Amino acid sequence: MRIALVGLGRMGANMRDRLKHRGIDVVGYDRNPALRDADSLESMVTRLGPGPRIVWIMLPEGVVDDTLAELTPLLGAGDVVVDGGNSRWTADAPRAERLAAHDIGYADCGVSGGVWGAEGGYGLMVGGSPDDVRAIWPVLTALAPEDGSGLVHAGAVGAGHYAKMVHNGIEYALMEAYAEGYELLAADSPVDSITEVFDAWRSGTVIRSWLLDLCTEALRSDPGLSRISGWADDSGEGRWTVEAALDAAVPVPAISASLFARFASRQDDSPAMRLVAAMRQQFGGHPVHPAG
Amino acid sequence: MRIALVGLGRMGANMRDRLKHRGIDVVGYDRNPALRDADSLESMVTRLGPGPRIVWIMLPEGVVDDTLAELTPLLGAGDVVVDGGNSRWTADAPRAERLAAHDIGYADCGVSGGVWGAEGGYGLMVGGSPDDVRAIWPVLTALAPEDGSGLVHAGAVGAGHYAKMVHNGIEYALMEAYAEGYELLAADSPVDSITEVFDAWRSGTVIRSWLLDLCTEALRSDPGLSRISGWADDSGEGRWTVEAALDAAVPVPAISASLFARFASRQDDSPAMRLVAAMRQQFGGHPVHPAG
Amino acid sequence: MRIALVGLGRMGANMRDRLKHRGIDVVGYDRNPALRDADSLESMVTRLGPGPRIVWIMLPEGVVDDTLAELTPLLGAGDVVVDGGNSRWTADAPRAERLAAHDIGYADCGVSGGVWGAEGGYGLMVGGSPDDVRAIWPVLTALAPEDGSGLVHAGAVGAGHYAKMVHNGIEYALMEAYAEGYELLAADSPVDSITEVFDAWRSGTVIRSWLLDLCTEALRSDPGLSRISGWADDSGEGRWTVEAALDAAVPVPAISASLFARFASRQDDSPAMRLVAAMRQQFGGHPVHPAG
Amino acid sequence: MRIALVGLGRMGANMRDRLKHRGIDVVGYDRNPALRDADSLESMVTRLGPGPRIVWIMLPEGVVDDTLAELTPLLGAGDVVVDGGNSRWTADAPRAERLAAHDIGYADCGVSGGVWGAEGGYGLMVGGSPDDVRAIWPVLTALAPEDGSGLVHAGAVGAGHYAKMVHNGIEYALMEAYAEGYELLAADSPVDSITEVFDAWRSGTVIRSWLLDLCTEALRSDPGLSRISGWADDSGEGRWTVEAALDAAVPVPAISASLFARFASRQDDSPAMRLVAAMRQQFGGHPVHPAG
Repeated sequence: MRIALVGLGRMGANMRDRLKHRGIDVVGYDRNPALRDADSLESMVTRLGPGPRIVWIMLPEGVVDDTLAELTPLLGAGDVVVDGGNSRWTADAPRAERLAAHDIGYADCGVSGGVWGAEGGYGLMVGGSPDDVRAIWPVLTALAPEDGSGLVHAGAVGAGHYAKMVHNGIEYALMEAYAEGYELLAADSPVDSITEVFDAWRSGTVIRSWLLDLCTEALRSDPGLSRISGWADDSGEGRWTVEAALDAAVPVPAISASLFARFASRQDDSPAMRLVAAMRQQFGGHPVHPAG
Repeated sequence: MRIALVGLGRMGANMRDRLKHRGIDVVGYDRNPALRDADSLESMVTRLGPGPRIVWIMLPEGVVDDTLAELTPLLGAGDVVVDGGNSRWTADAPRAERLAAHDIGYADCGVSGGVWGAEGGYGLMVGGSPDDVRAIWPVLTALAPEDGSGLVHAGAVGAGHYAKMVHNGIEYALMEAYAEGYELLAADSPVDSITEVFDAWRSGTVIRSWLLDLCTEALRSDPGLSRISGWADDSGEGRWTVEAALDAAVPVPAISASLFARFASRQDDSPAMRLVAAMRQQFGGHPVHPAG
Repeated sequence: MRIALVGLGRMGANMRDRLKHRGIDVVGYDRNPALRDADSLESMVTRLGPGPRIVWIMLPEGVVDDTLAELTPLLGAGDVVVDGGNSRWTADAPRAERLAAHDIGYADCGVSGGVWGAEGGYGLMVGGSPDDVRAIWPVLTALAPEDGSGLVHAGAVGAGHYAKMVHNGIEYALMEAYAEGYELLAADSPVDSITEVFDAWRSGTVIRSWLLDLCTEALRSDPGLSRISGWADDSGEGRWTVEAALDAAVPVPAISASLFARFASRQDDSPAMRLVAAMRQQFGGHPVHPAG
Repeated sequence: MRIALVGLGRMGANMRDRLKHRGIDVVGYDRNPALRDADSLESMVTRLGPGPRIVWIMLPEGVVDDTLAELTPLLGAGDVVVDGGNSRWTADAPRAERLAAHDIGYADCGVSGGVWGAEGGYGLMVGGSPDDVRAIWPVLTALAPEDGSGLVHAGAVGAGHYAKMVHNGIEYALMEAYAEGYELLAADSPVDSITEVFDAWRSGTVIRSWLLDLCTEALRSDPGLSRISGWADDSGEGRWTVEAALDAAVPVPAISASLFARFASRQDDSPAMRLVAAMRQQFGGHPVHPAG
C-alpha cells in the first residue's frame, strides 16, 4: 500500500517513519525541498498511481484549506483525503462537503502521542463516513499501537477532531493538576525529596499516569527545574475546548483554569493586578509596588 | 461619653478623630508614645473613671489575645471590650468566654470604609449579646454614617467578624471583576479611552459602585497605570473566607479565583508553570524558555 | 428632532418613552402591530422626512442583519443607523462597511441600565466615526442621565459593543461575588439577619454598589429567597466576553467562574459529576447515589 | 515479623491480607469483635511479644489521638507507631512529640491505591526520622508493589501525610479533568461512541492513566452512566490541600475548582444562584423559576 503525506514537519516525518516501518509506502511532500520525496503536489499524486488514492495531510491549520483547494483537481472519485493535523472540528464538515462535490472522500483524524508515538504508536480518533474510514483503516492501524488499541472511529465527519480537541482540553487540566501539586511540594513543606515522591507516585497510586512518568523524567534530569522558566505556551486546542464548552453550556472550570494559568505565565506584569493594586491604594492607603 | 481606644495606627487614629468629632471623648493607647493619650493600659483605664467602661481594641490580630489578657485584671463587671480589628471570627467565642468569667462583656465589630470612613462614616457589623451591643451602641452610631445607615447587629458573638470576613471576600471578587474587565479593555481592543469608559460606567449602568469610582480615580491620576506594578497583596480575610467556605461546603469559585490571582501576581516565576513547560518539552519537544 | 426606532420590546419601548419625554420625537416600528407607530419600515422612514435621518435599531441579535438589509435601500447618503441592541462587537465592522457602500453611517451603542434606565437615564457606550457619533449625539444625551454622565464615545466602530460586552462580563462576576457572599451568610453561620447585613453594607463599606441595592431589595421582598429557585440564565454576552479573553490570552477566572456557575445551575444532574462518582466507586468502593 | 494493626475496616482488612500474604504476621484489633484477632489493645500489644514493637493504625482521623493516648502506656522505648490513615499532616508533629516523651517512635504514612492496592501493592509515602522509618521498612516494602516501586521516605514527621494530601488534591483535579471532558463528549457533539473514545485514549495518547482505565471500566459497565447520579462526595483531603495552598500562598485554581464542583453537586438548589436570579429579575425584569 502506498499513500501520500503532505507536511513533513516533526510530526509528519515521524509518522512517515512509522508507516514505512509498518509496511506502508509513503510519498511525502513538503514545501521544504530537503524533506520531500516529490517536488510538487501533482507529482506526489501521480506517484500514487491509479486510485483509489489516500492523501494524508499533516499541516498547520492555517494552510489546510488552500492545500485542499490545490489538491482537489488532482484527485478523483473514490480518493480519500485525511486531515491528521490539529484542525478545528467545525472546519471539517464544510471541507467534506466541498470534496464530496468531486466525489472525493474526507476523514478527520486526531493524532496524539507527541514525539513518542513514532515508536509506540499513536492514539488516533477518526471521524468520517463508514466507507471513508474503512478505506483508510490500514493506514490507521499502522499508525496505532501494534496491539490494535488506541484507535477509534469516533463518529461522523468532525468527530475525530472533536475527540482530539477534548483530549487536549483534558490534557491541559491533567498537567495543571500535577503542576499545582508540584508547587505545593516545592513550597515550604515537610517534603524534602520531590523527585522521589513523584517517582513513587508512579506505582500503586490513584494518580499514576503517563504524564506523571514525564514529570518524573523532567524532575530527574533537572531537580528543582532550575533550568527552565515558568513560561507555558498553549497551542489553541485548549481555547477551542473552552469555546465548545461555552457553546454547549458545559461548565469546565478546571480546563479553563489551566488555560488561564498559562496565559498569566506569559505576562511580564498583569494589567488586572495593576488595577487591583491601584484600588487597594485608593481605599486603604495600601502601598503599591512602583512599576519596574 | 468617654471610651478607651487601644491601637492608634492609621485606622485607629482616624476612628479616634471621628469619635471626638461626633462628641465621644477618647483616651487612646498605643505602644508608640508619640501617638498615645495614656502611658499605659492601666492609666488609660483609670482615666475612664468608674464603670461601666468601654474599651475598643484596634490591633493586628496577632496581639489581641495578649492585650485582652493584660486588660482583664484592669476591668470589672459590666465593662465591655470591643474588638474592632480584623480578627478571625472563630477567635471571638473563646475570647467572650474568657472575659465572661470576669463578668466583662465582649463584642466583635467588623469595620469597613478604609481611609474614607473617617469622613463619611464607617460600615459596621457587630456581633454580641443584646446587652453588650446596647451598651456600645452610642459608639457605633458615632462611627457609622450620620444618617444611621451602615450599622447592623449581625448576630451573636462572632457574627460581626464573620460578616466582615464575608464582606472582604466579596470585595476581593468585586475588585477582580473590574480588574479582568480592565485588562480586556487594555488588550488589543477597539476601545481607545479606557478611563472615559470607566468614568461613563459610573452612571446609569448595572455595574456602578464605589469601587468603580475608585478605579476611575486611579485611572485619571495615572492613565494606563504605568506607575504601578501588578503586585497585589492580600490581607488574610480573603483566605479566611475561602476556609469558611471549605468548612461549610460552599462553592466560592470567584472569590478563590480572586485570591489566587493575587498569589500569582507576587511570584517572580511560577513553579507550577515550570513543570507545565517541562511536561510540554517532554511529550512534544516544545521549546522551553530557559530560566532567566 | 425626530428619529426612527425599530424594535419596541421592553427596552425599546422604555427608550421611546424616555426620548419623547426628553423632547425627541420617535417613529417606532415593531413587527407587533399593537406596539408600532408605523406599519412598515418604509412608512417609518418616510415619516422621518428628508435626511439626514437617524434609525435606531433595538432588536435581538439574530435579526439585525436582515433588518439592515431591508433598511439599506430605504435610506440614503448621510443617514445614520445605530445598533443599540446586544450585538456581538465583531459584527459591527462588516455592517458598517456594507452601509458605507451606500454612504450610510453606522454606530454601535451598548445600552445599560435595564428597566431602571427609562427613568434615571441609561449608561451608553458608543462606537463609530467622529462624524456619525456627532450626528447622533443629541439622541445619546437624551437617553443618558440628565447630568451628562454615563455616556462615552468609546472608540471606532465596534468599540461601543465591545465596551458593553466587557461591562456585562464584569456584571456577571460582580453578581457572583455577592451571591457567593450571600451563600456564606446563609450557610451555618453566626449571622442571623442576612437582609439587615446586606442593607448595612450599602453604606460606608467598600462593597457598596447599585447591585447591592438590588440584592437588598430582593431580600427585603423575599427574605431567604424562598420563592425563587437557583436557576440562573445567561444572555450570551458573558460567553462573548470569555471568548474575547481567549482570543486575547487574557485570564478571566472570575468572569468564567460566574458563567460556569450559571451553566451548572441549570443542570438537573451533572454528567461530569456522574463520572466523578463512578470513578470514586471504582477505586475506593465509595457508595454512589443511584440515579433518581 | 509480627506487627499490630488497629482498625480493620475495608482498607485495614485489605492491608492485613496483603501483609500476611507477604509473610508478615498481623495481630489485628477493631472495636468490632467480628473482625478482630485480639480482644483489646492491651492483649494485642501483649501478643506482639517483647519489643521493639510496631503498631500500625488505620483509623478515621477523629479517633486517632484517643487511640494513641490509650496505646502509649502499653508501649515502651524503641516501639514505633505508624499512622497510616488519612490524618491531617499538621497533627503529626504534636503526636510524634507526645510519643517521644515516652521514647516511642512515630511515623506517618500516606497510603494510596484504594481497594486495588491489596493485590498490586499500595503507593506509600512515609514521614519520620531515619531510625523510625528504617524500623518499619520491612512492613512498608510488604505493602508496596513487589518490584519495590511506589514507596518513598518523603521527609521528616508529617511529610508522609503531606505528600498524601497533595496526592489526593492532584487526584481531585485529575478526576475533574476527565469529568469535564466526558461532559463535553456527552453534550451535543459529533462523537457517538464515548465509551470507545475513552477506551482508545488508554493507549498511545498523552492522557492515558489509571484513572482513565477506571473511567473506561465504569462506562463499559454502564454506558451513559444512567444508573448513577451526579452527586460527588469529598473526603476532606481535598479541603486540606486547598487550605495548605492558602497558607503557602500557592494558586490552586484547578484543585479548588474540582472541590467546588463536588460541593455544588450535592446541593439541591444553590442559594448563590437564587440571589443571581433575584438580581436579574430586579434589574432586567428577567423571569425567574419559582421555587419547586
